[in-house]
Amino acid sequence: MPPVNLREAIEEYGEVNGDLLMVDRFLNHRVDPEVMTAVGIDIATWLSGRNVDLLLTAEASGIPPALAASREMGIPMVYAKKYLGPGERYTFSREVSSPTKGTEYRVEVARRVLESGLRVAIVDDFLAGGRTAASLGEIAEEAGCEVVGAVFVIEKTFAGGRELLESHGWVVHALIGIVSLEGGGVRIAD
Amino acid sequence: MPPVNLREAIEEYGEVNGDLLMVDRFLNHRVDPEVMTAVGIDIATWLSGRNVDLLLTAEASGIPPALAASREMGIPMVYAKKYLGPGERYTFSREVSSPTKGTEYRVEVARRVLESGLRVAIVDDFLAGGRTAASLGEIAEEAGCEVVGAVFVIEKTFAGGRELLESHGWVVHALIGIVSLEGGGVRIAD
Repeated sequence: MPPVNLREAIEEYGEVNGDLLMVDRFLNHRVDPEVMTAVGIDIATWLSGRNVDLLLTAEASGIPPALAASREMGIPMVYAKKYLGPGERYTFSREVSSPTKGTEYRVEVARRVLESGLRVAIVDDFLAGGRTAASLGEIAEEAGCEVVGAVFVIEKTFAGGRELLESHGWVVHALIGIVSLEGGGVRIAD
Repeated sequence: MPPVNLREAIEEYGEVNGDLLMVDRFLNHRVDPEVMTAVGIDIATWLSGRNVDLLLTAEASGIPPALAASREMGIPMVYAKKYLGPGERYTFSREVSSPTKGTEYRVEVARRVLESGLRVAIVDDFLAGGRTAASLGEIAEEAGCEVVGAVFVIEKTFAGGRELLESHGWVVHALIGIVSLEGGGVRIAD
């Protein structure tokens, strides 16, 4: 039986590959339903009392935690699409460079699915440099929404993302903080 | 209140754009949690009795229905990744051409997340020409797994996908069949 607890899953199945933490056995390629349900509950718990109307994430690995939380909270979620090509009309979009993948891509949300006046929470699987999440928050604000929080399953606390998001005035939370991946070992914050 | 029923959601929010059925207000961009939970239950119901070990889908729009069904069934799901670049080692992969998007891409599953001997069901949001689903099934079989069914949220019954998948010997099911999009109207099968 796989562990139902996120921390246990990381300790048992997480693998370090250079400066990447591989969690593809249970979180972002193969998805364990019990771990993901627990993640959704934890995200929903942290967001409770913030009167969130909509969860905003980015494809593809943000979708499972955002959907799990959406189900707990009974509110819709929107996943931004990522494109390499030229932009389209009727969208909010931002260019994002990804040091992990060495590419530049565009996150895009159709205007028709993000109406103004909503209280939006950003959700994603990883917070590292924070570029994708910052783009999502900027898109939400451009749409006339308020960003009432940004929640991540796993934060690399040494990668600067939290500081970037807090500089926008957004409240940031992560379910698990990774303090270090040095020497191939995962050090989880207490 | 949004409709919780898939058919009602399509009738109320589905829009026809050329030969595309746009369901991005509730299914594949903005996701309605009640509709998606109902979809997961319907997929799980159809798959019950087939002793499924794992659900296999492709990013990004296959993830919500597969995750919703995964949760109902208490089994993991794997989403294949789509890439434009060159292939990597340690993966099962197939090239897929998409007439909808006018591109060619590769669906890829890491060998480490798909062990042999599993009973696998393919899940996706749309069945049209069936190229992506056929590639997923071929990947599962290459991995030494058995394809025990292929389930789709919406099938364009006029697009030939069912015939392609059945030619592989796989059993195919769709929650909703779209008979025609001619003249900008959605005709749903009884």
